[in-house]
Amino acid sequence: MALIRVINPNSNVHVTDGLAASVAGYAVPRRLDIICETLEQGPFGIESQKDVEQVKLPLLARMKARPADAYVIACYSDPGLALCRAEIDRPVFGIMESGLATALARGDRFGVIALSEIAIKRHLPAIRAHGFDDRLAAERAVGTSVAESADEAAFDGLLAAGRTLVDQDGADVIVLGCAGMARHRKGLEAALGCPVIDPTQAAVSMAIGTVLDGTDG
Amino acid sequence: MALIRVINPNSNVHVTDGLAASVAGYAVPRRLDIICETLEQGPFGIESQKDVEQVKLPLLARMKARPADAYVIACYSDPGLALCRAEIDRPVFGIMESGLATALARGDRFGVIALSEIAIKRHLPAIRAHGFDDRLAAERAVGTSVAESADEAAFDGLLAAGRTLVDQDGADVIVLGCAGMARHRKGLEAALGCPVIDPTQAAVSMAIGTVLDGTDG
Amino acid sequence: MALIRVINPNSNVHVTDGLAASVAGYAVPRRLDIICETLEQGPFGIESQKDVEQVKLPLLARMKARPADAYVIACYSDPGLALCRAEIDRPVFGIMESGLATALARGDRFGVIALSEIAIKRHLPAIRAHGFDDRLAAERAVGTSVAESADEAAFDGLLAAGRTLVDQDGADVIVLGCAGMARHRKGLEAALGCPVIDPTQAAVSMAIGTVLDGTDG
Amino acid sequence: MALIRVINPNSNVHVTDGLAASVAGYAVPRRLDIICETLEQGPFGIESQKDVEQVKLPLLARMKARPADAYVIACYSDPGLALCRAEIDRPVFGIMESGLATALARGDRFGVIALSEIAIKRHLPAIRAHGFDDRLAAERAVGTSVAESADEAAFDGLLAAGRTLVDQDGADVIVLGCAGMARHRKGLEAALGCPVIDPTQAAVSMAIGTVLDGTDG
Amino acid sequence: MALIRVINPNSNVHVTDGLAASVAGYAVPRRLDIICETLEQGPFGIESQKDVEQVKLPLLARMKARPADAYVIACYSDPGLALCRAEIDRPVFGIMESGLATALARGDRFGVIALSEIAIKRHLPAIRAHGFDDRLAAERAVGTSVAESADEAAFDGLLAAGRTLVDQDGADVIVLGCAGMARHRKGLEAALGCPVIDPTQAAVSMAIGTVLDGTDG
Amino acid sequence: MALIRVINPNSNVHVTDGLAASVAGYAVPRRLDIICETLEQGPFGIESQKDVEQVKLPLLARMKARPADAYVIACYSDPGLALCRAEIDRPVFGIMESGLATALARGDRFGVIALSEIAIKRHLPAIRAHGFDDRLAAERAVGTSVAESADEAAFDGLLAAGRTLVDQDGADVIVLGCAGMARHRKGLEAALGCPVIDPTQAAVSMAIGTVLDGTDG
Repeated sequence: MALIRVINPNSNVHVTDGLAASVAGYAVPRRLDIICETLEQGPFGIESQKDVEQVKLPLLARMKARPADAYVIACYSDPGLALCRAEIDRPVFGIMESGLATALARGDRFGVIALSEIAIKRHLPAIRAHGFDDRLAAERAVGTSVAESADEAAFDGLLAAGRTLVDQDGADVIVLGCAGMARHRKGLEAALGCPVIDPTQAAVSMAIGTVLDGTDG
Repeated sequence: MALIRVINPNSNVHVTDGLAASVAGYAVPRRLDIICETLEQGPFGIESQKDVEQVKLPLLARMKARPADAYVIACYSDPGLALCRAEIDRPVFGIMESGLATALARGDRFGVIALSEIAIKRHLPAIRAHGFDDRLAAERAVGTSVAESADEAAFDGLLAAGRTLVDQDGADVIVLGCAGMARHRKGLEAALGCPVIDPTQAAVSMAIGTVLDGTDG
Repeated sequence: MALIRVINPNSNVHVTDGLAASVAGYAVPRRLDIICETLEQGPFGIESQKDVEQVKLPLLARMKARPADAYVIACYSDPGLALCRAEIDRPVFGIMESGLATALARGDRFGVIALSEIAIKRHLPAIRAHGFDDRLAAERAVGTSVAESADEAAFDGLLAAGRTLVDQDGADVIVLGCAGMARHRKGLEAALGCPVIDPTQAAVSMAIGTVLDGTDG
Repeated sequence: MALIRVINPNSNVHVTDGLAASVAGYAVPRRLDIICETLEQGPFGIESQKDVEQVKLPLLARMKARPADAYVIACYSDPGLALCRAEIDRPVFGIMESGLATALARGDRFGVIALSEIAIKRHLPAIRAHGFDDRLAAERAVGTSVAESADEAAFDGLLAAGRTLVDQDGADVIVLGCAGMARHRKGLEAALGCPVIDPTQAAVSMAIGTVLDGTDG
Repeated sequence: MALIRVINPNSNVHVTDGLAASVAGYAVPRRLDIICETLEQGPFGIESQKDVEQVKLPLLARMKARPADAYVIACYSDPGLALCRAEIDRPVFGIMESGLATALARGDRFGVIALSEIAIKRHLPAIRAHGFDDRLAAERAVGTSVAESADEAAFDGLLAAGRTLVDQDGADVIVLGCAGMARHRKGLEAALGCPVIDPTQAAVSMAIGTVLDGTDG
Repeated sequence: MALIRVINPNSNVHVTDGLAASVAGYAVPRRLDIICETLEQGPFGIESQKDVEQVKLPLLARMKARPADAYVIACYSDPGLALCRAEIDRPVFGIMESGLATALARGDRFGVIALSEIAIKRHLPAIRAHGFDDRLAAERAVGTSVAESADEAAFDGLLAAGRTLVDQDGADVIVLGCAGMARHRKGLEAALGCPVIDPTQAAVSMAIGTVLDGTDG
């Protein structure tokens, strides 16, 4: 039975619970298990560059300690993605990278709902490094913490940012710029009328393609 | 129960059988069905621009006639992708687009094994339109027809092209540039030592993310 | 005597008449004839992706049936350009491509006056495929049909869009984003004070370079 | 009667004669005159950056002294193009810019046959400034002077460079990288089997679109 | 003792005095001398393309007449940079190029405070030629002459432009788009809270790296 | 007196000695001190992604512990550059970033001599993130360790790589892709006949511009 291990690099178990709720439906009895787990030594939310750096080596240690067929790093800053790919011989997916790559197959110009202006500054060089800047409509910040973004109360702010991205910036597909926003995906998609990508779902979906043997039907 | 419909726009049922064999393992009993079918009015192989154009409206008619939760157009030229997306209110995936987007989450520079020089000329503007040209290592042609590419005898040619892409052009992930090449994916990956993406598997994997409700666990 | 055949892929003869009026002055007695003709089986206006697809094969059939030294496809979506180039051994020009290429030799950043937001969504990937996105100031939609755009009453809307492109978006050359807008070119150029490119004139002008023998003076 | 003035900024009248021969066929009795003339104070060939700079102000003075409806600067380095555009209120075309823009409407990837490696170093930043680098297959130098390039003996070297551009670099349209090469265009096109653009013809052809009133038929 | 020669290509000695004041602190007794001098035959301010062209050959003549270990062309249009590099066998720095390159090592997206809209039109193709357009937030014009920009009274206008670049355009590093603005650098940096690059200081700083022997400690 | 602190993040003091020798000449008595120091807890050479990650937080701790007016991170992978910039309120320079930015002001297309193929894989996304890929000629690996690259015996391998970059890849400026290669800069520049950039010298030179008060002459 194949296993995808989804690691939340922050220590907020509420966020991990949200992740688990958002990807449980992709598990396949007797063929595919998906475990969502918390990196306890991570910060409560990954919001600064220092937060990003501090979880990289612990993430690698976690992957080395707990085998899986594929790993998902469930933080939109993709902390440790290059490191874990270099050191782990199983596929490793970052949710920003997977979320953006998936968005590029769902619309022409993507918009990102980010937590903060600081997060946007961190994302832009990554978008250029991926070569995706030609397709970026804009990023818009909602000004909340990781923890707050997972609350029901965050919906209105996310929706306002999404509306600006669609109506003003020309986006026709939206990416949620934090793993914590997963619970809002359906509601936003219904309200905005265009695809809204939860990046963790996108990464797990891509991971499925590598751990299930398509030819084993 | 969700349904992904994979349509082979050429009339070569041998290719459709190969597609079915490559994605059967993604089906989930009682939750997800994957049907691979042949567009009988298509040409025996889609090799010229005219072949591409001729299947677009029939593909749309097929989708309108046969409901599904998501569709995959299983030809590497992505014929009719813009058309079907504009006219069908369910997600539609093209295998080139999905295959390239997936490759971008598996390596830094992708190489494509194409059927022919004419196919490469057709792919390059599409790669630019996708904004992926910054990540392209190269495309290399093997000089076979769609039908031949599905034969066991094609393996050596594909491997030689893959080796050139990796060793000479700097690719670290390979995309199979024809749906017919699916059967060779595993062997090529083992021989080349880097990820080899079957674009139909990539598209079905992305489609799973849209048709299974991740939150329905 | 050389012949350039300009084909209006929509069935609106009023648009064809406008095309003929806009390029008649390029004909050269006894050396160059320019015929503008209507693809009767086309839709009344090419406004959706389906409209685009439906005229491609008829356009090719028309070119095969009616010889010429060069062809111009007189619809800003350049329907069938790749197809006709692949199948016809005479130069084939699309008016978007020719209009944009000409704009790049008249100014630094081009703006496009488009019919609709849907048209803009269709144009943007084409602009990327051409590699011209670095020079795009913006596209602005006027919200009219092809037929309406050819009416005198459309002028004010076109002018307003042009003013926004120049004053706000930084364009210093404007391209008319529909063959139907040809009659407004002179008036817009006078009012805006920068070059305004009628794409059909641009395509015919480029075609002249291929059908007249420059060395035959 | 409209007038296009084509100015050869070098003092080699043999080159000017070649230009005149290559565009004479575009003149239209009683409607369009095309005058090719020599900038006598120019160097014998424009081969260094200093040659380029030295002709800019004299070119401007010439245009101010001799009215025309449009001007063509017939040197592939486009000397003085920005200057003359800023100071002259008639359209001014540079042959590199016009030649490249025309090539982009004739093929997917252009190759340039340049005089020398030094010329290529000069062209590359210009190609980036135009935003055309995404479409560049390669430039290849033949190692001749401007004067030599106009001789019949230069043909074999040009053909060899063209063959390399097509067969090895993937070009499907060739641009002649010096006004002096005009006489070889037809022969190269026949031998290479793909469009070969003479940049002076391309510029004159574009200029025709601005000086003839298309609506005056 | 090494010598960096900074040439102000306009004839406004007030600007040269400002330059001297801004770089005097980089001189090193007995090891590095920095001379700022005026090109007397230059215009009072370089504001048009014609101004740019007219100083190129005099700049080259000046460099040939007055030896130095490195030269800085202290005008933001980088007049004669390609020419002087081709003809002079010592390092030659242009202040736009050096200022932008330095900005790219101080922030993620740069904004430029330009003198005028005409200057911006001149800068944009240069930014593309440098390949720096991916990092450009925006240029904003203050609408002053070179001479005025060096007055204390210009500060408020520069600050307003800087604020727009930071707050609205997303710049996190500002480049002063005229050598005359040097005196305002410190004040702007303090007021804006992000790095403000004086391009002449940037060029001299780069030049130091080539004329002082780092290994000679 | 201003202080630039150059930190070698590997623990090889031989490399630190080489750094000190290469930048000592930039110090200015009584005005500018340059200290080169070793991060003792770093690996002997930074050759893998894990080596890169492991030094980031120690680098930050070092900067916090030891004040300076500007810092240079003297490893070509620029480890911790984003982190230290976010956390330290003094200018921080990475030698890859500074070396590339400087190269862009010395030539048109840069080539990089890298230690290994693995290093090149690490550099390419960074070059894209910087937006410098349009100017990259190529990277070529010499296949040595950091320590070996600082030995005299490494010269021939570096020269061979440099020759390939210049003659085959079209580079006209070379960047040394490891801080350890500093001692070879002069010899390579003499042998290759084009500028060779030592990235540590480039970073220190840029840092000088920020720590010396140019106006304090």
